[in-house]
Amino acid sequence: MNGATDMNNSQLILHNALIVTMDTELHVFLNGGIVIENDRIIAVGQSSDIIRQYSSNSQEIIDLHGQFLLPGFINTHVHTSQQLARGIADDVDLLTWLHHRIWPYESNMTEEDSYISTLLCGIELIHSGVTCFAEAGGQHVSGMAKAVELLGLRACLTESIMDSGEGLPSSWGVRTADECIQSQKELHKKHNNTADGRIRIWFGIRQIMNSTDRLLLATRDASKQLKTGIHMHVAEIPSENEVVMQTREVDHGTVTYLEKIKFLTSNLLAAHSVWVNEKEIGFLSSCGVKVSHCPAAAMRMLGFAPIREMLDANVCVSLGTDGAPSNNRMSIVDEMYLASLINKGREVYTNGTTNPKLLPAESVLKMTTINAAKAVLWENDIGSLEVGKKADMIVINPSSWSMVPVHDCISSLVYCLRSENVVSVMCNGSWIMKNKKIMNVDEAEIISRAKHASKELLKRAGIQIPNRMNLI
Amino acid sequence: MNGATDMNNSQLILHNALIVTMDTELHVFLNGGIVIENDRIIAVGQSSDIIRQYSSNSQEIIDLHGQFLLPGFINTHVHTSQQLARGIADDVDLLTWLHHRIWPYESNMTEEDSYISTLLCGIELIHSGVTCFAEAGGQHVSGMAKAVELLGLRACLTESIMDSGEGLPSSWGVRTADECIQSQKELHKKHNNTADGRIRIWFGIRQIMNSTDRLLLATRDASKQLKTGIHMHVAEIPSENEVVMQTREVDHGTVTYLEKIKFLTSNLLAAHSVWVNEKEIGFLSSCGVKVSHCPAAAMRMLGFAPIREMLDANVCVSLGTDGAPSNNRMSIVDEMYLASLINKGREVYTNGTTNPKLLPAESVLKMTTINAAKAVLWENDIGSLEVGKKADMIVINPSSWSMVPVHDCISSLVYCLRSENVVSVMCNGSWIMKNKKIMNVDEAEIISRAKHASKELLKRAGIQIPNRMNLI
Repeated sequence: MNGATDMNNSQLILHNALIVTMDTELHVFLNGGIVIENDRIIAVGQSSDIIRQYSSNSQEIIDLHGQFLLPGFINTHVHTSQQLARGIADDVDLLTWLHHRIWPYESNMTEEDSYISTLLCGIELIHSGVTCFAEAGGQHVSGMAKAVELLGLRACLTESIMDSGEGLPSSWGVRTADECIQSQKELHKKHNNTADGRIRIWFGIRQIMNSTDRLLLATRDASKQLKTGIHMHVAEIPSENEVVMQTREVDHGTVTYLEKIKFLTSNLLAAHSVWVNEKEIGFLSSCGVKVSHCPAAAMRMLGFAPIREMLDANVCVSLGTDGAPSNNRMSIVDEMYLASLINKGREVYTNGTTNPKLLPAESVLKMTTINAAKAVLWENDIGSLEVGKKADMIVINPSSWSMVPVHDCISSLVYCLRSENVVSVMCNGSWIMKNKKIMNVDEAEIISRAKHASKELLKRAGIQIPNRMNLI
Repeated sequence: MNGATDMNNSQLILHNALIVTMDTELHVFLNGGIVIENDRIIAVGQSSDIIRQYSSNSQEIIDLHGQFLLPGFINTHVHTSQQLARGIADDVDLLTWLHHRIWPYESNMTEEDSYISTLLCGIELIHSGVTCFAEAGGQHVSGMAKAVELLGLRACLTESIMDSGEGLPSSWGVRTADECIQSQKELHKKHNNTADGRIRIWFGIRQIMNSTDRLLLATRDASKQLKTGIHMHVAEIPSENEVVMQTREVDHGTVTYLEKIKFLTSNLLAAHSVWVNEKEIGFLSSCGVKVSHCPAAAMRMLGFAPIREMLDANVCVSLGTDGAPSNNRMSIVDEMYLASLINKGREVYTNGTTNPKLLPAESVLKMTTINAAKAVLWENDIGSLEVGKKADMIVINPSSWSMVPVHDCISSLVYCLRSENVVSVMCNGSWIMKNKKIMNVDEAEIISRAKHASKELLKRAGIQIPNRMNLI
């Protein structure tokens, strides 16, 4: 289903667009053009120059009529296998969320469920302008991989990995550290660099309270050996830090302990990282750890991540949606909006008043493009529209009721943009959404299959959602 | 353009819908039907009963195929005449925002600008499921009224009223308190109860720092005399309270002072009310003052409003979008999502950890329906789907990638719903949006006129927005 594989040096021109390149000089072409050959960008520049130089060699020339062209957004923390669980754990406390909803759900998933869940999630991601994502660690990576290959997306896929922990469903059967590593090495062998290079396999650590030191260190070493990344939930809630202090003999929490055992490296993507102190931010920075900030999940469940302090310390911060039961909108576009608002407002908490100048639009856009590309260890190929990079890009229609008037084109992309404005999405040189139509799967069919599969899964897992209001 | 005026006891049935009535018992019909005669609801019940009893007398019967039917949302704080200013003041401090962007913009508006601005804003409101709004106090009420009448919306319109204050543009020419009251009485006479009763005229107070006591008290008395409401920005920022303490000899701030002069009454809609202490929340409650909580604007500019404390004290809290330069999304659907997230997260600030159970979905839905109807003093006619009330309602398609699966229909409406899911909107018995098409104006033409008018207005006002990034 990937058009690029059929082409033989096929050349495509997109022109007459406002191009936000996100290159190192942050060039924005007010009337720009771009040339794509197979899966890569071979030229970016003024529209007139591009047309003059390339039109005779191009198979297709598309006039974007002043629409905006951006690098595809990268969602650095998403649980694709949790999409069928949207709405199963709203307005409940964290223990109910985990023990009575998420664990029963996840432990009862089949590979087919994971496939359908990832298809449904992928459709939502594409509609929100995402071309690449980092799976947070989920069930049945083979199911995910099949869905990602079909949809045409780019992804770093990760298995949910735990080798210890109380209260886990008995049906799961906790694996040893060695079994965890072995399983992931097999997944790497089977799926890494498949789907025309769009799929990479990462190592996962669900969280420190479900990990032995043996697992942590073996994961660090295996990821280095295979030259890939580690995705881990880090310092999510105060009680996580407390447990670490009590059981692992450090004076603060997870990050302090991970530094002590030399687990913090530049291939670690640390999701959330809400409860970290100044010293720990220093560790994240000096070790080159990447942070995925998930504003919606943080506000709902975790707390205020110290994003200003991390950016001041040069930590690479990107954005993630987290999973559907934590959010429930899987829209990186909404996360940009939230990141800006919440971090401006958080200043009341730390400094007494809001700071409307904090985290300006250009910083937020970096978080979903170039910073996010670094976070997924793919910055040589994606994250900006530059010659030599992969053709991962999105077309945005700013001429609608949700964005007009556009007095500040950059801030409009953060504060006004909605998924409604994302009209077309290209990944690896192929359109995966064109004029709002998902190209490689039948959207209505997936929705119908997802409704059925999710109902069956909840039944199997014995999950019952209490009624609200007065249903008759 | 209002279909209802052409009808002579026209009866319409909508059936096969999940109907969230928001009546006092919070009934939800899983398969419900509703009968509309002219502009009012004459029956709500089980689909089969409705069809059996009413189908022979009805001109039109619409099968909603399991879609959701809700009361139209009510946005209780929106600056319609600021819509053309979207994006003119992003990421700037409050003084720049007010003195160098908003005041020059507002003081240079013509009535035609206000008309186009309200049309554009109204289109966005309708797409977000709004059938009624409370204007926060803006320029050229006659322009607004013309737009509201045409669009088919319901509104409480308010003039921006100030009789004092430093730094106001000289072109505005500050009016006396008597002139302010006189102007509003004339607007009331001209526009109140027009557009088939959809338009009501309220009194406005921009904020306490632009108001003499004479204006405040004359407004209170005139609003009682005309049996209408007062819309005022209250306790927005810490320095507002400080100025009030220094100049008006009270020990806390605006609310304390307003209580002292007996300004707090049940027809006052107090927008924001962020910086209020426990005693002041008690005043708001005992005087029956209604509060409009605007989560996006609060996070960006103002701070955390004590919503939990207000609800605990039985203050009637509703939701508002504020104006485009403060938000920039004018979507009450997004404000519901934000209200839930931000108030769950705010508990870190007050209690050390988030509270995911706080402000559950049903409470948030009340804020945009029945609470909001009380806030706009219109609860006898709108805010719920009940026999005898006006036919203000919206159709939501839950069967899309942004909402599926729907395991909890009520929480889905707060946490998953996006404006994309709002397919049809009825106000006063007439469809004002049907299958995403705005019925009474040409959306594309308004967008084009808005682009032009806003560009000219900024030029006239001498407002220049600095470039971001590296535009070439």
